Amino acid sequence: MPEFDIIQRYFQQKSRHNNMVRTGIGDDAAVLIPPVDDDMVVAVDTLVNGVHFPTNTAAFDIGYKALAVNLSDLAAMGAVPRWMTLALTLPQADEAWLEGFSNGLFSLADEFDVCLVGGDTTQGPLTISVQLGGSVKQGKALLRSGAQPGDHILVTGNLGDAARAIQLLEQKQPVQETYLLKLNRPLPRVAAGQALTGLANACIDISDGLYADLSHITAASGVGAEVELGALPLSVELQEEDLPLEDKYRLALSGGDDYELCFTVSDRQLETVQHKLNSLGVACSKIGRISETSAVVFRTPQGGEMTPDGLGYQHFS
Amino acid sequence: MPEFDIIQRYFQQKSRHNNMVRTGIGDDAAVLIPPVDDDMVVAVDTLVNGVHFPTNTAAFDIGYKALAVNLSDLAAMGAVPRWMTLALTLPQADEAWLEGFSNGLFSLADEFDVCLVGGDTTQGPLTISVQLGGSVKQGKALLRSGAQPGDHILVTGNLGDAARAIQLLEQKQPVQETYLLKLNRPLPRVAAGQALTGLANACIDISDGLYADLSHITAASGVGAEVELGALPLSVELQEEDLPLEDKYRLALSGGDDYELCFTVSDRQLETVQHKLNSLGVACSKIGRISETSAVVFRTPQGGEMTPDGLGYQHFS
Repeated sequence: MPEFDIIQRYFQQKSRHNNMVRTGIGDDAAVLIPPVDDDMVVAVDTLVNGVHFPTNTAAFDIGYKALAVNLSDLAAMGAVPRWMTLALTLPQADEAWLEGFSNGLFSLADEFDVCLVGGDTTQGPLTISVQLGGSVKQGKALLRSGAQPGDHILVTGNLGDAARAIQLLEQKQPVQETYLLKLNRPLPRVAAGQALTGLANACIDISDGLYADLSHITAASGVGAEVELGALPLSVELQEEDLPLEDKYRLALSGGDDYELCFTVSDRQLETVQHKLNSLGVACSKIGRISETSAVVFRTPQGGEMTPDGLGYQHFS
Repeated sequence: MPEFDIIQRYFQQKSRHNNMVRTGIGDDAAVLIPPVDDDMVVAVDTLVNGVHFPTNTAAFDIGYKALAVNLSDLAAMGAVPRWMTLALTLPQADEAWLEGFSNGLFSLADEFDVCLVGGDTTQGPLTISVQLGGSVKQGKALLRSGAQPGDHILVTGNLGDAARAIQLLEQKQPVQETYLLKLNRPLPRVAAGQALTGLANACIDISDGLYADLSHITAASGVGAEVELGALPLSVELQEEDLPLEDKYRLALSGGDDYELCFTVSDRQLETVQHKLNSLGVACSKIGRISETSAVVFRTPQGGEMTPDGLGYQHFS
């Protein structure tokens, strides 16, 4: 199937325009109407076959996740997603795969009113880069750099389930539905992120594990953090598994692939934030405080410390 | 070398901010100040190792070309490039390669005042996606769809040199510097594209060969075209080569990788356009006219026709 037919059938025809799109797929570049009084926000994330998803992952889930990880980045900025481009490198034009992939991609795109405005389809090893654009009120983007000593540290949802799924898949053991859903169909916290603008001091999405991502906040803000391991939100399924507690903490701290938000909030705003997220149906947990030191410390329920050695996902480590 | 150090050393430190960037590399997403009274323009192009460049291509040239092909897309819209993101998938973190690649990328980025505002670095088979954003006066983007019967068809520069370079490389024959430069360091026609806004009726950049790309204009505009093969601009080097004339035409029509502009202009605007491009030092050649039919016809100097069978580069053909 020629490249132009692939683009038309699986992407152009499925793409729903919104009021930002002047010219979408089909020219040398897309033409967009910029937001008025807002800043623009742009993120890009790549998924590589066998690195970011197991090779036998369903095409639908790959399409879904390619957008979900980017939505999670925009959520962490407090932004409203509006448009995306897709750079899709494929070994061959398998129509069943393309149908599944595009269905997964557009299931999320339509849910969040994101229009696919352009892209490039090339032949090569399976690699997917989605770039997502959106808008946020002028000067109100949630950054990593705003955390203040004394701030509460909060996270949405549960941590560690996706990492547990990968662990079980690698061990060729059965994987519970809860874990698989978290791995393949993470729910980006877009509404929660928008609710946090003007309230949270700093925010990041947890893609590399809480330890690595919280460390990005502390490094960018020039502060430290103290986290109570006993306060880490774990799913009922993970709580009930017959695993040492320390292993569960490690999954939550360094497993990655959670796509939850980690953010910091002053004493004064804490109640407002909890109320807002509650009204959106988004669970959030207070897990610690920002400190004046530059260290990120994890305290066990027994009062000890867990060292962060080897925590956090790293490419090229 | 850890991912964060790669990003900082080879990309963040080399990236020059312009007045559009509020928050660049280093957060979950970039924050940009949108243009006022302008439309935004966004393009993405991917280069895959062994598909879009020979495996032994110098890292500098790969970095250069990854941006050049996108600049060419923005040129074809008449847009001013402003910012880019980079999705870089690498087999390993080779520092010499990264140094060459980023030098090539930023040599063009600095020349055109394009700021690298974000990206993603992942491990996998060498694949580079650059997304380039810019601006163009509201409603003034040059589209493929505006060609009118009677319009003159023009192209900038020369055609076929890059294709000849690939041919010679594949035959393991020596390649002339002119051809190699055109293949590895194409000069995107950014200033020419901007000069054409408000004057040209349709425009495209020639990446897949004149036949395929002119056909995109005629299809989008609902018109046809008649091209005089004798008017195709060939470099002195290609003119002087001991090759059948038909082979030279084929290189110009279907070789691709030219990154010149093909555009259509009414009788009334022809002189203004020629004068403007001349004053920019950009050569342009009148190669034919837009017709009312839906066919794209190539006339030989002898009055015959050359059939377009098999012309034009196609992925997944």
